[in-house]
Amino acid sequence: MADYRKMWEELGMDLETHDQLCEVLPQAFGDVYLSQENRPEGMDYYNMVVADIHGIRPAELIEHQKKGGKVFGTFCVYVPDEIVFAADAIATGLCGGSQFWVPGGEKVLPTNTCPLIKASVGARLDRTCPFFRIADMYVGETTCDGKKKAWEILGEDVPIHIMDLPQMKREKDIKAWAEEITTFKNVVEEFTGNQITAEKLGESIKLINEKRKALERLYELRKNEKLPISGRDVLLISQIAFYDDPKRFTKMTNALCDELDQRIKDGVSVISSGTKRILLTGTPLAIPNWKLHNIVETSGGVVVCEEMCTGTRYFEHLVDETRTEVAGQIEALAERYMNINCACFTPNTGRLDDILRLAKEYKADGIIDVNLKFCNLYDTEGYLVERGLKDAGIPVLGIETDYTDSDAQQLRTRVSAFIEMLNH
Amino acid sequence: MADYRKMWEELGMDLETHDQLCEVLPQAFGDVYLSQENRPEGMDYYNMVVADIHGIRPAELIEHQKKGGKVFGTFCVYVPDEIVFAADAIATGLCGGSQFWVPGGEKVLPTNTCPLIKASVGARLDRTCPFFRIADMYVGETTCDGKKKAWEILGEDVPIHIMDLPQMKREKDIKAWAEEITTFKNVVEEFTGNQITAEKLGESIKLINEKRKALERLYELRKNEKLPISGRDVLLISQIAFYDDPKRFTKMTNALCDELDQRIKDGVSVISSGTKRILLTGTPLAIPNWKLHNIVETSGGVVVCEEMCTGTRYFEHLVDETRTEVAGQIEALAERYMNINCACFTPNTGRLDDILRLAKEYKADGIIDVNLKFCNLYDTEGYLVERGLKDAGIPVLGIETDYTDSDAQQLRTRVSAFIEMLNH
Repeated sequence: MADYRKMWEELGMDLETHDQLCEVLPQAFGDVYLSQENRPEGMDYYNMVVADIHGIRPAELIEHQKKGGKVFGTFCVYVPDEIVFAADAIATGLCGGSQFWVPGGEKVLPTNTCPLIKASVGARLDRTCPFFRIADMYVGETTCDGKKKAWEILGEDVPIHIMDLPQMKREKDIKAWAEEITTFKNVVEEFTGNQITAEKLGESIKLINEKRKALERLYELRKNEKLPISGRDVLLISQIAFYDDPKRFTKMTNALCDELDQRIKDGVSVISSGTKRILLTGTPLAIPNWKLHNIVETSGGVVVCEEMCTGTRYFEHLVDETRTEVAGQIEALAERYMNINCACFTPNTGRLDDILRLAKEYKADGIIDVNLKFCNLYDTEGYLVERGLKDAGIPVLGIETDYTDSDAQQLRTRVSAFIEMLNH
Repeated sequence: MADYRKMWEELGMDLETHDQLCEVLPQAFGDVYLSQENRPEGMDYYNMVVADIHGIRPAELIEHQKKGGKVFGTFCVYVPDEIVFAADAIATGLCGGSQFWVPGGEKVLPTNTCPLIKASVGARLDRTCPFFRIADMYVGETTCDGKKKAWEILGEDVPIHIMDLPQMKREKDIKAWAEEITTFKNVVEEFTGNQITAEKLGESIKLINEKRKALERLYELRKNEKLPISGRDVLLISQIAFYDDPKRFTKMTNALCDELDQRIKDGVSVISSGTKRILLTGTPLAIPNWKLHNIVETSGGVVVCEEMCTGTRYFEHLVDETRTEVAGQIEALAERYMNINCACFTPNTGRLDDILRLAKEYKADGIIDVNLKFCNLYDTEGYLVERGLKDAGIPVLGIETDYTDSDAQQLRTRVSAFIEMLNH
């Protein structure tokens, strides 16, 4: 740990405040994760990653920078990592998932802003997260009001490039997104000094597709009645996917899936029969936000799928690998990314279709629609989503929460009652 | 009034609930407006318009429909009225400004949505506003999360066309807005059955420019130390500009300006010397939201300018009238509309420039930055705006409010203290 302290110091971090964060995380992780029984052995890797979350990966990123490489920090599943990796740079997710960072964000942002944005801004401005210090350039997008405006404040502290995501999904909007990706490519090329050739881009498309396939394989295993892995564990893997080395992550996740395949053959299950299968839908759960999964899985339920950015939205749909020229590859990227159904689009009817399909595939007994407080997009769309689910005869519970623990007891009561209701 | 009841009934309105609204408006108007001393005689016209706000103009719109004309309802100063009028249709603003409609909106929208959006949706769904019943087609835009998603709910009840406003202001975004205007033109042509020729569009560009010039002339008069008209009265005029017949509105506003010119010559002022000159900036004040103006103007201050949608954003910058072909006219429209500095853009530094310029031109003693609750865009930008104003040495008060009266006393205390402070 001594080495990391030196690293953090060199990153200009506020060590004293950061120490407080380092003190609480292991306890939280132990409570939510290590208390589980019968965890797959393959989870050891992710346990290690998260145990040294501010050490191991940051050290790798700094090593990369020492060799002249650049690091790009991102906040959204619409930003194509492929472009970054094709320029021999590294993309790392930056979304903050801890209440620890929220007060720092509230110094400059309205209280009525979603906790994910407040935590992200706070982590940067308070200098309490190495990833936020390391990233040479941030990549923002125009997905929601809160982020769109937060870039202006973050941009005073760090170089930021903003991608204008269209707000609709007509043919011309997909073309417009391809143009934004081209502009992003030019920015990345200039910033890194490396040219993004068709060969390089082809490689990075494969690299990220392989990561998607590993996650898809992992999720596929959750469709079994005998469940080889808990929802909490899969959430952790999904969260780590955003910042781990993609090649290693893919390898470790496939190795875990091998173990889970064996579990299926052996009839091993982490849940007792009768445990209610819950699909979560809504806003993303950035690391270390494990609150709702923990409540569900200690209240007679198990999370079998997340229709979320930290979930299916991250890995569904592959980028077409058959295009051989940069322009065509960028078209393929635009088509794949515009397939994601985020509430930032108007309309976004595809999302309800997704949820209905996933509920069937994952044999969900009930759905919890979870909204981060002050996310107007998902909150408003929740009205249509919950109505659609009721029309389809699927039990649904709507929940609004933030990063504090103050509503944990109330949430537990509501979730327990919902799961209890599913038994009748 | 009997005639109007029949009209409202034929519009499918909820008469009983609407009666409650009709009962409270005259009292509110009397308290805020008729209590003023030394009002210009030219305000009689606007008094009349607002006294029969749900009668006179709605009857005209229905008359227009009986002759086969169409009515388009709009919610944003970026939507070009010129296109609508060029097709012999009528555009009318629909933004709701009364708490009366808010609970109706909250039935389907999150409570954490700005009152303007909740009121607008409530006015439609509760059938308590004739304008919302009359409009044949609504025109939405992607300016903020709240509106973007509200269209999906409104769209289940009424035909709606949505314009995708770019979120940035690069050269290509102005081009993209021109494309959106072209699409809108096609929609309007098809819906009305009328072709929008260069001649017709040229006429409507002049028509709306004349309205802008009249408002500009009115505002210009507010730059005088001896103030010929109150802020409240100008706010009312700005609000009526959104739905009155543009030709008549221009004529009546110019007639009022003639009277105000004479007042200037005669040294007539509606304020006593020493009254503090306040510039308001922030979110729009839809009719009948007169709350803040009333508080300022009964607390030792006077509002001399509104850097708002109901203010300078509505009329500043004319559309170039020299273009003679439709494509060029649409380019000119895009250029003019993209000149508006709304917080929905990232970044939006032009707005601070506007405020600094206006503060100087209108000789403001202080600025009140007013934000409608849950408008994340203006709230976040407010951080940068207020910091910029402080840096420029201009006193600024930040206020957040909604349509209820519950904070009126607290607001009065804060505004009074601010104005008192300006005296020292």
